[in-house]
Amino acid sequence: MKTLLLSLLLVSSSALAGNSQYVNPFIGTSNFGATHPGAQYPNALASLSPFNVAFGDALNKFEKDAAWNSRVYIHENRYLTGFSHLNLSGVGCPEAGVMLLMPTTGKLNLNAREYGSTYSDEQASPGYYTSQLDKYQVKAELTSTLRTGLSRFTFPAGQSHILLNLGLGLTNETGASLKVVSEREVEGSRMLGTFCYNPEDVRPVYFVARFSKAAAEFGAWKKMPKYQNVEADWISYNDSIKPYAGYRQTLSGDDIGAWFSFNTEAHEAIEVKLGISFVSIENARANLDAEQPGFDFAKTRQAAVNAWDKLLDRVEVEGTETNKTLFYTALYHSLIHPNILQDVNGDYPLMGQQGVGNSKQNRYTIYSLWDTNRNLHPLLSLLYPELQSDMLNSAVAMAKESGWLPKWELYGMETQVMVGDPATPMLADSYLRGIRDFDIQSAYQAMIRAAEQRQHNLLRPENNDYLDLGYVPVDDEGPYDGSVSTSLEYYLADFNLSQLAGALGKTADQQKYLSRAMNYRKLFDASTGMLRPKNRQGQWLTPYDPELGRNFEPAPGYIEGNAWNYRFYVPHDTPGLINLLGGESAFVQELDATFETGNFDMANEPDITYPFLYNYVAGQSARTSLRASELIASHYGNHPAGLPGNDDTGTMSAWLAFAMMGIYPVSPGLMDYALFNPSFDKVTLKLNQDYYPGKTLVIEKGKPKARSDTQAEFNQGPLARPFLSHQSLVQGGHLIIQ
Amino acid sequence: MKTLLLSLLLVSSSALAGNSQYVNPFIGTSNFGATHPGAQYPNALASLSPFNVAFGDALNKFEKDAAWNSRVYIHENRYLTGFSHLNLSGVGCPEAGVMLLMPTTGKLNLNAREYGSTYSDEQASPGYYTSQLDKYQVKAELTSTLRTGLSRFTFPAGQSHILLNLGLGLTNETGASLKVVSEREVEGSRMLGTFCYNPEDVRPVYFVARFSKAAAEFGAWKKMPKYQNVEADWISYNDSIKPYAGYRQTLSGDDIGAWFSFNTEAHEAIEVKLGISFVSIENARANLDAEQPGFDFAKTRQAAVNAWDKLLDRVEVEGTETNKTLFYTALYHSLIHPNILQDVNGDYPLMGQQGVGNSKQNRYTIYSLWDTNRNLHPLLSLLYPELQSDMLNSAVAMAKESGWLPKWELYGMETQVMVGDPATPMLADSYLRGIRDFDIQSAYQAMIRAAEQRQHNLLRPENNDYLDLGYVPVDDEGPYDGSVSTSLEYYLADFNLSQLAGALGKTADQQKYLSRAMNYRKLFDASTGMLRPKNRQGQWLTPYDPELGRNFEPAPGYIEGNAWNYRFYVPHDTPGLINLLGGESAFVQELDATFETGNFDMANEPDITYPFLYNYVAGQSARTSLRASELIASHYGNHPAGLPGNDDTGTMSAWLAFAMMGIYPVSPGLMDYALFNPSFDKVTLKLNQDYYPGKTLVIEKGKPKARSDTQAEFNQGPLARPFLSHQSLVQGGHLIIQ
Repeated sequence: MKTLLLSLLLVSSSALAGNSQYVNPFIGTSNFGATHPGAQYPNALASLSPFNVAFGDALNKFEKDAAWNSRVYIHENRYLTGFSHLNLSGVGCPEAGVMLLMPTTGKLNLNAREYGSTYSDEQASPGYYTSQLDKYQVKAELTSTLRTGLSRFTFPAGQSHILLNLGLGLTNETGASLKVVSEREVEGSRMLGTFCYNPEDVRPVYFVARFSKAAAEFGAWKKMPKYQNVEADWISYNDSIKPYAGYRQTLSGDDIGAWFSFNTEAHEAIEVKLGISFVSIENARANLDAEQPGFDFAKTRQAAVNAWDKLLDRVEVEGTETNKTLFYTALYHSLIHPNILQDVNGDYPLMGQQGVGNSKQNRYTIYSLWDTNRNLHPLLSLLYPELQSDMLNSAVAMAKESGWLPKWELYGMETQVMVGDPATPMLADSYLRGIRDFDIQSAYQAMIRAAEQRQHNLLRPENNDYLDLGYVPVDDEGPYDGSVSTSLEYYLADFNLSQLAGALGKTADQQKYLSRAMNYRKLFDASTGMLRPKNRQGQWLTPYDPELGRNFEPAPGYIEGNAWNYRFYVPHDTPGLINLLGGESAFVQELDATFETGNFDMANEPDITYPFLYNYVAGQSARTSLRASELIASHYGNHPAGLPGNDDTGTMSAWLAFAMMGIYPVSPGLMDYALFNPSFDKVTLKLNQDYYPGKTLVIEKGKPKARSDTQAEFNQGPLARPFLSHQSLVQGGHLIIQ
Repeated sequence: MKTLLLSLLLVSSSALAGNSQYVNPFIGTSNFGATHPGAQYPNALASLSPFNVAFGDALNKFEKDAAWNSRVYIHENRYLTGFSHLNLSGVGCPEAGVMLLMPTTGKLNLNAREYGSTYSDEQASPGYYTSQLDKYQVKAELTSTLRTGLSRFTFPAGQSHILLNLGLGLTNETGASLKVVSEREVEGSRMLGTFCYNPEDVRPVYFVARFSKAAAEFGAWKKMPKYQNVEADWISYNDSIKPYAGYRQTLSGDDIGAWFSFNTEAHEAIEVKLGISFVSIENARANLDAEQPGFDFAKTRQAAVNAWDKLLDRVEVEGTETNKTLFYTALYHSLIHPNILQDVNGDYPLMGQQGVGNSKQNRYTIYSLWDTNRNLHPLLSLLYPELQSDMLNSAVAMAKESGWLPKWELYGMETQVMVGDPATPMLADSYLRGIRDFDIQSAYQAMIRAAEQRQHNLLRPENNDYLDLGYVPVDDEGPYDGSVSTSLEYYLADFNLSQLAGALGKTADQQKYLSRAMNYRKLFDASTGMLRPKNRQGQWLTPYDPELGRNFEPAPGYIEGNAWNYRFYVPHDTPGLINLLGGESAFVQELDATFETGNFDMANEPDITYPFLYNYVAGQSARTSLRASELIASHYGNHPAGLPGNDDTGTMSAWLAFAMMGIYPVSPGLMDYALFNPSFDKVTLKLNQDYYPGKTLVIEKGKPKARSDTQAEFNQGPLARPFLSHQSLVQGGHLIIQ
C-alpha cells in the first residue's frame, strides 16, 4: 500500500517535472495547422488521435472530402468518429488517419455516419489525450509508444462495443484485410498512399490489436457494393454495411471493420492496444509485445512524458508562461517528423522497392524536405544532433536502396512532391555543422547524381535544361510552370554541394557548383527587381505581373507563391542579391515593401528567412527583431489557430523556436545564425557533447536600447555584426543579444 | 528418343482407352444446365473453366448480372474474360467462378470489359479444355488436379501478359487480397459466399499461383472507388482501374488483380499452376507443391483422364455412340459434387464454425441434398460406395462440429437453401443399402435432433407446427409459403428415420416415425385429388388452383412447383396414395394427365420419380419404359442444351444414368429399383466388393415384346413384379429386362 502510494506520487510529480508540462497539443488544430492533439511519443511511427473530419453534417464545419483536407482533427469540428493510430502532423495532403477505434454502447451500429458522437471534457498533453463521448457517456483516454497505441475506454453499465473501422480514414486510398484471431485480438492490414495524388504509390500498414477483456461477442463488417438488376432485388445489404457475426476468417474489401462487444459494469474500463508495422502482421505483433507486454496505461503514459521531457529539457527558457507554451509546443511539433519506421527487430520497408531491409540504427521516414531543409533540420542539428545523425544515415540508406536521396519520402515511397533537390542542402548543412557520423562519400555520390544526371532524374526532372541554360526555362509547363522556383532550389542545392565539396577537399567540384549556384543572376530582371521567368531563348516572360499568384491563382514561374515571395530567395548569396537590387538602401526599401504590401507569406517556406535579412544591412538589423516579434505576435499563439498555416512537418514550429531564441540560421550551407532579440530573458541550451565541444549555451536578452542595430556579445567579446557562426555557438558559453 | 516416342504413344493410347473418351463436357452448357466445359478432376475442389458471362455486349447473350445467372460458361455466349479456378457444376445460384486467369498480348489492358476475347477451336474432354483466343492468337489449354489448376498459354512473339483477376467472378460476394511473392508467384485470398442471398455467409478461398517463367514485369491493380468533390478533381484513377507496377506488398480491396508480363517468342508456351485451399495460403502452397511439383501438362492431364477412367470404367455399356456419350457424361456430371474440401495435410474449415479441423479421411463439401438425396446418392451408393461412405462420414462430422447435419452445405457454411430435412434420407438410405462404415449412432442422434427439436431447428424450422398438427400449416408464409412441400419432405425424412430405426432395432422409434410419415394423408384432399395446403385450423386453402405456379408465379403451399408437380410426391407410400386417389385406374389416369397436360417438370426434382410410378400398377408398367424413353429423347441429348435445366449438382444426370440402365430407385429408404427398358443392349456394373457380395451385375435388354407389362428375370428367375431390391441386385449376376 505504501509502495503504491509512493509510485502514484512519483508518477504525479514526474509528470509535472519537465518542460512537457508547457506543451499545448491543441495549437495548430485550427487555421489549417494540420497538427493533431492526440497521444504522441517523440518521433514515433504510431500516434493516436481523435478523428473528427467525417460526416456530422452541421456538427462538422469541415468535412474531409468536401475540400482538400489534410487534417484528422479540426478544432471547429464537433462530431468524432473514432481514434486513428497512424497520423501525419502538419502535412498538406490527406494521408493516413487510419485504423480507427470507436467505443459505443447500446444497440450495435456499424455505420460511422451514425455511430459518431460529440465530445466534451477534452484535454491533451504530450503522450495523453482524453475526452468524454457525449452520446455514449464513455470516457476515452489515449496514450502511445513508438509503434503502438493504447486506448482506455471507461464504459457505463450495459452493452458496450469497441469498433475497429478499416474503411474510414484520411488517406485517399482504400482497401483492407482483417482477421479476428480470438475474442481478444484482431490482425490485418490497411492500404494507404496516393499521397498528393502523384505518383499514387501505395503501401499497406499492418496491425495487431489486443483487448484487455475477452469480447462476449465479436464480428466483422463490410460495406457492400451497389448491386444492380436482379442482384439488387435479392441482396440484403445493397450499398450498405453487412455484419458477419462471429466471423474469424480473413475478410478483405474496400471498406471493412470489426467489432467487439462486452457486457460492462458501471465505470468499467476496457483497454485496447494496437501495434503497427510497415513490414508484416508478425512484426506488428512483435512491436506490440515488446512495447506493451501488458496493459498498463499509467506506465505507458509516463514513459511518453519521460521521453518528451528528456528532449524538451534540452532547452530551458525564462519568460512568460505563454511564451514557454509557444516555445515548448514548437519544439514538440518539431520532434514528430521525421519519425522512426523500423520495427523492434530492425525490419523496415526498403526505399522505392518492395523488399524488406533491416537496420540496427533507427530508420526514419516522413521527409518533407522542401519544407524542412530550411530550418527544421538545422534546429535538430543544433539541439538534437543524435537524432539528426540517424536521419542523415536513413537518407543515405535510401539513396543506396533506391539510387536517389529522398525528396518527399513517405513510408519508403518517394512521392516527388514539390520541387528542387532538398536532400543535398539537408545533408551538406548537417555535415558542415559537425554531424559527420554518416557515410558522406555515398551521400556525396548521390548528390552528384542528382546534380549531373540529365535524363530521368528523379530529384531534378528539369536538370537537362538547367545544365544547358543555367536556369530552368519557363516555356514548357503552362500556368503551373515552376521554372523560377525550381531554379532557385537547384541553385541552393548546388551551393550546398559546393560548400560540402570544399569541406571534403574537392576543390574543382567546389568551384563548379559555386559557379552554378551563382547562375541565379540569370533570372534577375533589373527592370522589375524580380527573379523573373525566362524562356529557352533567353527572353523574359511577358506580360508579367509580380503580384500574380498572391491569391493562389496559377503564377507561371512560381510554385506556391508569387514573384514577391521568391524575390529574395537566394539565401546563399544575400549580399550578391543586395548588389543586384541596387545596394543596401534599395534592398531595405524592397524588403519593407514586401511586408507592407502584404506580399510576405508567413505560412509558406520560400520567404520565411526574409525577416532576418535586415541583419545584412548595417544600421538596419534592429528591424529584424521588430519583424520577428510582429510575426510571432500576429501568427502564433496559445490557441488552436496558433500556427500560421500547415505546420509542414514542423517547419513553421521550427521557425518559431529559432525566432523565440533570437537566432536564425541564414541558409542551409551557411553557418551563420542571424541574431536578434529573443522572446525570453534567458535561454539555456544543453549541447550534446558527443557532437559539440560546448556543454551549455546561454542566450540572454540584453537591456533593450533604442538603436537601429542589434548588438551582441559572445563570451564577453562584442560581435562586429549581428551574426554568430554555428561553430562558435556550439563552443558554448554566453551570448547576449540586445 | 525411343523412350519419348513410347511415352507419347502411351499417353495417346491410354487417353483413348477408357470410357472418359465418351464424355462430352459441353452437355449442359446451354439451357441453364449450369455445367461447365472446363478441366475437371473427379470430385475435385478445384476446376478450371472458361468464363464467358461478363461484359461482351452483343457478343454475350446472357450477362451474369442482367438476370439470375448461376453459370460461369454459357454456350451461346462468345466473349471470354478468363479461366476460373473454383466452379460449381449444375447449381441454381451464382457462386464461385473466381480466380480468373487471362492471357493477353500487346499493350497491357487491365479492364476485363476490354481485354476479353472471342474464341474458336474449342474442345473439351475430361480433365482438358482448349480454345484459341481470337484477339490475341493465344492457344489456351487447361487441366487440373484435386486442388490445383494448370493452364498452358501458347503465345505469339512479342509482349505477352497473364492477368489474374480477383475482382471478376460469378459469386455475389466481393473482396480480395493478394501479394506478388516473386516474378513467378502470387498468393492471396478471395471472398465468396452470400449463396442464394440467405443467410449471406461468407468464406475466403486462399490461393497460390506459380508461373513456369519468371515475368519480365509484373504488378497489381485495383479498381478505385468513385471519388467526389475535390478528390475527384485530383485523383488520376477515379472509378477506374489503377495499376501498381512492380508492387509486391499486400494489396486488398473489392476489385483487384495482378499481372505478369513476358517477352515471348513465337509459339512460346507459358504455364501457370494455381493451388487453392479453404484454410490458408500456406495450405494452398502445400497443395500446389504436392499435386504439381513441377510443370508437366501432359502428365497432369493424363492423371485426370486416368482418374476419370477408373471411375467411369465401373460401368460398361453396349449401345450407340450417342447413348454412350449421354450415359458417361451423366456419370461424369454425377461425380463432380460433393467434392473434397480438405487440403493435402488433412486440414479443412470446420462446419458452421470459424476454426480448422483435420481429417485423415476425405472431407466432402457441396451437399445440395434437397436435390441429391433422391437419386444421386443412391447412384453413388450403387456404383461408388467407397465415395458415398466418405460423403456419409463427412456429413456426420458436420453434425458433430455444428450440431446439425447438412442441408445445402457450401464450403463449411450451411446455406439453408430449400426445404425439408434431406440428410436423413441420404444417410438412412445409404445405411440400408449396406454402406455402414460410418458412425451411425452419431448420425442417428443428429437425425433425432432434427426430428424432435421444436424451436430454433436449423433443418426443420417448421417443426413445432409439424409436430403439433402432423403437417405444416399454410397460414404464416404469404405467397411464398411452402407448407405442403415442406411437409412432404418431413414425411419422407421421417419415413427414412423409421426404416433406419427398424434396421437398428429401435422398434418404438420405428413405429413413431412411420406414423409421422403417414400423416401425409392429412394433406390429401379427396375433392381435388391434390396434396393441398391446409391452415392451422384444419381448413383447406381456398380459393385453390392446382395449376398455379406452373409459370413460376408464387403458389402458396408449394416450393418450385405447383400442386400437380407434388401430387404424387409420397415416394415412400405410393400404394397408399393409389388407394387415396381411388385405386389403380384413377391413379394411372391422373398420372397420365400429369404428363399430358404439361404439368410434369423434368427440370425439377419433386416429380422426377413419376415416370416410374406406372410400375406400381399391374398391367401398366410398360408405360414406364415409354415415359422414360420419351423423356430421355425430349430432354437429353449430345449437345449443349442436352440437360433439362439446372443439373442440380448431378441430380438430372443421375436420373439419366439410372434411366438409361433401366433401373430407378423408387424412394430413399425403400430398397426397390423400378425396372424398365434400358437404353443399352447390355450394361455391366463392376460392384465394389468391399461393400457388396457380387462382383458384376449385367443388365440386358430382352427382346422387345408388345405387352403392357415389363417382364424381368434375375439370375434366371422371373420376377413377379417389375422391381428388384438393392440387396438382390448387389448379389450380382444377370438381370434381363424386357
